[in-house]
Amino acid sequence: MGVNASEVRITCYHHCNQTFESQELAHKDEYKIYGYPYSTNTRRVLAVLHEKGLSYDPITVDLKAGDQKKPRFLSINPFGQVPVFLDGDLKLTESRAISEYIVTVHKSRGTQLLNYESYKKMGTQRMWMAIESFEFDPLTSILTLEQSIKPMYGLKTDYKVVNETEAKLEKVLDIYEERLKKSSFLASNSFTMADLYHLPNIQYLMDTHTKRLFENRPSVRRWVAEIIARPAWKRACDVKAWYHKKKN
Amino acid sequence: MGVNASEVRITCYHHCNQTFESQELAHKDEYKIYGYPYSTNTRRVLAVLHEKGLSYDPITVDLKAGDQKKPRFLSINPFGQVPVFLDGDLKLTESRAISEYIVTVHKSRGTQLLNYESYKKMGTQRMWMAIESFEFDPLTSILTLEQSIKPMYGLKTDYKVVNETEAKLEKVLDIYEERLKKSSFLASNSFTMADLYHLPNIQYLMDTHTKRLFENRPSVRRWVAEIIARPAWKRACDVKAWYHKKKN
Repeated sequence: MGVNASEVRITCYHHCNQTFESQELAHKDEYKIYGYPYSTNTRRVLAVLHEKGLSYDPITVDLKAGDQKKPRFLSINPFGQVPVFLDGDLKLTESRAISEYIVTVHKSRGTQLLNYESYKKMGTQRMWMAIESFEFDPLTSILTLEQSIKPMYGLKTDYKVVNETEAKLEKVLDIYEERLKKSSFLASNSFTMADLYHLPNIQYLMDTHTKRLFENRPSVRRWVAEIIARPAWKRACDVKAWYHKKKN
Repeated sequence: MGVNASEVRITCYHHCNQTFESQELAHKDEYKIYGYPYSTNTRRVLAVLHEKGLSYDPITVDLKAGDQKKPRFLSINPFGQVPVFLDGDLKLTESRAISEYIVTVHKSRGTQLLNYESYKKMGTQRMWMAIESFEFDPLTSILTLEQSIKPMYGLKTDYKVVNETEAKLEKVLDIYEERLKKSSFLASNSFTMADLYHLPNIQYLMDTHTKRLFENRPSVRRWVAEIIARPAWKRACDVKAWYHKKKN
């Protein structure tokens, strides 16, 4: 394995004992992120930025006011969704694609969120990232919508939908429990993007009756407690920090 | 940019004018794939294998007989889904994760399905891969299920669901049309994994009334015609070839 320029630079940072804040200064072109601090998809990207110790310039798109469906924002993202991420002239949508971009550009910095050690470890990690996207997210997004988002908008929770979705989620969490009995985290014995991707919906569900499905399974409970306590995640959920962040 | 061992090897293959078949001999440990030749997710992986000129050992899981939900198969994949991919002692599920693994291991071989040229190109490609997963696939999977899969099982198509889903798909395809006016393919001017991921559902929808939504948009129509005609895709859809494939 060769050593590339960015790795040398990061090694220097580590040896100099510099903090993340001073590393941030080296990141000259501040990232801009259109988002909403309560949005699960916005928080996914913020968690990655904080894990990597990167600064960003937040631009609020008020989802409660429906700003994401207004012509001004649709000209930025025709899908009418947050987050939108700007790095100079590059514009990216889709929280997981943005996360991949940040983690690949800054692979040697902060938390190592993608595994480059071996093809097989990478494959296992990709599998757990896909399980989040196709097995976990569709169910937990419905449960978050019904129990957390709808009440915010004064809409009624559909408990028939909640019950049916919880029954499906139980089967998925049974598979997670088996995995987490044998492995500290989903993809490996260290925290990776596969774990991080789960956080936004889990955070909301911890304030709903669905919490019991995670609590009833000892290994899932242990995993949730560990990932939800990460300082980068706490910062990603800090709504005041989003609004009060000084523009550079 | 350095040159690594695998790139040198592939350059040699090209200079020697060897065919894909002789390259396949270099791939000693044959991949095994549990799948069903009519399954969209199985075909996604087969398309990648054929684009890369890789051989595989097919193991049929008869979805029509419900074999994917029987204990024998659940011990292989507790989610009860195909495909499952075996590379020696590595077992992977989720068609897109399997595809990523194959493409990363064989990055210099066959069609270059992932872009490594620059971070920005990679970011744009990741975005279009995510758009397929989160905007295109959920809608086209419903339309394929209702119009192609249900009739295979003697079940009735729900045309209310079809109409509602088509209305949503129209909005997504309007965005694709704008993109494909400016770019030959979704992520760039060459065919990549972002395009390939769309093929399995498009193939089924070309035999349904939904075809008109693709045909009505000139750039989308041009793109569909080009990607669906790829020889690797034709091979991925060859059901007889799946059943008659000689085991090595």
